[in-house]
Amino acid sequence: MNIEEVREKTVSGLTYKAAGVNIDAGEELVSRIKPLAKKTFNSRVLTDIGGFGGLFDGRFPEMKFPVLVSSTDGVGTKIKVAIDANRHDTIGQDLVNHCVNDILVCGATPLFFLDYFASGKLNVDVGEAVVAGFARGCEDNGCALIGGETAEMPGMYAENDYDLAGTIVGVVEKEKIFNRENVTAGDVLIGLKSNGLHTNGYSLARKALLTQYKLDSLPAILGGETLADALLKVHRSYLRPIQYLLEKFSPATDIHALSHITGGGIVGNTSRVLPERLALDINWNSWPRPHIFRLIQDAGKIPETDMRRAFNLGIGLIIIAASSSAEKIESALRDFGEEPVRIGNVVQK
Amino acid sequence: MNIEEVREKTVSGLTYKAAGVNIDAGEELVSRIKPLAKKTFNSRVLTDIGGFGGLFDGRFPEMKFPVLVSSTDGVGTKIKVAIDANRHDTIGQDLVNHCVNDILVCGATPLFFLDYFASGKLNVDVGEAVVAGFARGCEDNGCALIGGETAEMPGMYAENDYDLAGTIVGVVEKEKIFNRENVTAGDVLIGLKSNGLHTNGYSLARKALLTQYKLDSLPAILGGETLADALLKVHRSYLRPIQYLLEKFSPATDIHALSHITGGGIVGNTSRVLPERLALDINWNSWPRPHIFRLIQDAGKIPETDMRRAFNLGIGLIIIAASSSAEKIESALRDFGEEPVRIGNVVQK
Repeated sequence: MNIEEVREKTVSGLTYKAAGVNIDAGEELVSRIKPLAKKTFNSRVLTDIGGFGGLFDGRFPEMKFPVLVSSTDGVGTKIKVAIDANRHDTIGQDLVNHCVNDILVCGATPLFFLDYFASGKLNVDVGEAVVAGFARGCEDNGCALIGGETAEMPGMYAENDYDLAGTIVGVVEKEKIFNRENVTAGDVLIGLKSNGLHTNGYSLARKALLTQYKLDSLPAILGGETLADALLKVHRSYLRPIQYLLEKFSPATDIHALSHITGGGIVGNTSRVLPERLALDINWNSWPRPHIFRLIQDAGKIPETDMRRAFNLGIGLIIIAASSSAEKIESALRDFGEEPVRIGNVVQK
Repeated sequence: MNIEEVREKTVSGLTYKAAGVNIDAGEELVSRIKPLAKKTFNSRVLTDIGGFGGLFDGRFPEMKFPVLVSSTDGVGTKIKVAIDANRHDTIGQDLVNHCVNDILVCGATPLFFLDYFASGKLNVDVGEAVVAGFARGCEDNGCALIGGETAEMPGMYAENDYDLAGTIVGVVEKEKIFNRENVTAGDVLIGLKSNGLHTNGYSLARKALLTQYKLDSLPAILGGETLADALLKVHRSYLRPIQYLLEKFSPATDIHALSHITGGGIVGNTSRVLPERLALDINWNSWPRPHIFRLIQDAGKIPETDMRRAFNLGIGLIIIAASSSAEKIESALRDFGEEPVRIGNVVQK
């Protein structure tokens, strides 16, 4: 008995395909994905994809105490916007960048990424577009797309729906991990701008907007952009500007902590990196909010407290800096093309 | 502005909760999960969960060339059986064991695991049961549950539905990675028994069975077990018996390869670890199939070719052994409490 015999066409009874699972489509997708993933490989990747596991060189000879930093995430209901707008090529990039930022705020550099793609009915073209987004995101962040899983789950997802999850693993020198005990009252909060919702708050945004607008609507406040354009802006990766800073400034004396602004907003996320005795004093009027947030707030008559809890409101990453280093850090960021904003301070509770 | 102010109750307009996302339930779940995950921690885990990333000691001083081996997977539509039977405490264990086996067949020992749990409406009790399953699976395999993501996605999943994904990272000494070029014609296929479907073929099984039976039915062939009992048997982890073998036998001379039998069946999975020029000769009558497979095949009038492609049919892992070592390997397996079966040979194409 060889493979070809097992894959003969069946003539009667219930077949795997009739049960809603199309193994051939899965194999077609894997063959289209392979070259995309391969483009992300570097000399540390020790295998082709398609094996039972992805293999990555685990030696870090240049480090004294390498620490592996990992994170798993999804894109929330931003995926519903991608599906409804029939634009599948950037949602994977959103997820990679989200994961990159999550380990970046621990000080880590990305090594490799694995994706999970589950759909009601596997559409090979959609799957290829999604994975192309993963691959582009990985390439941009110097990260290898080392593995993944494609699941066809009839009855769980509506036929055209799909969900994604991603896992990233990176590495950081132990002594360079941020230590919340370095954060002190008087530290300055330097915000790096987001380009929109990134990947958080979409359930609220969709509920507020989609009763009044369609995804191809052109609300005046967006200045010629469609709603889909504004909602599908790719979650920024802050890898390059932060790596640039970490080459010049020390975690102990200059940059005390970083926070990635996701669900929970500026306060929810940044509080996680403070010692218990400290709190945040945010000047909420110190930066211009992207127009999409005004549109959402007005459409849904959303209280300001909920806006602050659900959205990044224009700030995607926060650097908690020693007050004596803040100006030099901001100047370095501007040299790198960023527009840093001082959005507040750390204070005693 | 401190956290308490941001979390004031809102009095008008559309709130995050009204949009279907309940941050408080998410926080309640995280607080219940923490002690479960902590039980899986060992001295190599360098952080509490709840940070932006999970931290794990990346030093392997006892190894010459450590290779990180990773894999992402889901449980397919077995999850629909868990949901419909309202039994959520073992499906996480299924996923951990599946992932453990996937890297085990590369020779790797598990280090850490991260989960993704997405639901239509977050039920804290269900979420806790699921994560308890992840934690039990991780503990059993000496693996740290180092991180995870809980997503509430109204509109994507039906209210009581949820999906899971998991990612495992393990490590293997480079020279101990199985090399398919060691596999030769005449090698013996030694099967380790499965206890049922493990996590594959559920779309076909459900379609075949659930038109005629209910999950609490007691089909005579199952000898007193309900259908739910038979379908929800926990995917076996083969970590302990295989580790026991790898201490005694060499990858180069005795054990040429391993394959984990998942979607694609015995032939589909085992062919992946053969050189191009070789094929499998399986004696399909050499082991007794668990009764659940007969029940499925009869109920759905499923052609044998589809049965072989969709299911493990009673063999969960295959050891490709040098013919001269096969008896010693089988004897060692019996000492360990396994019932190995010779299911065929490697042959020239």
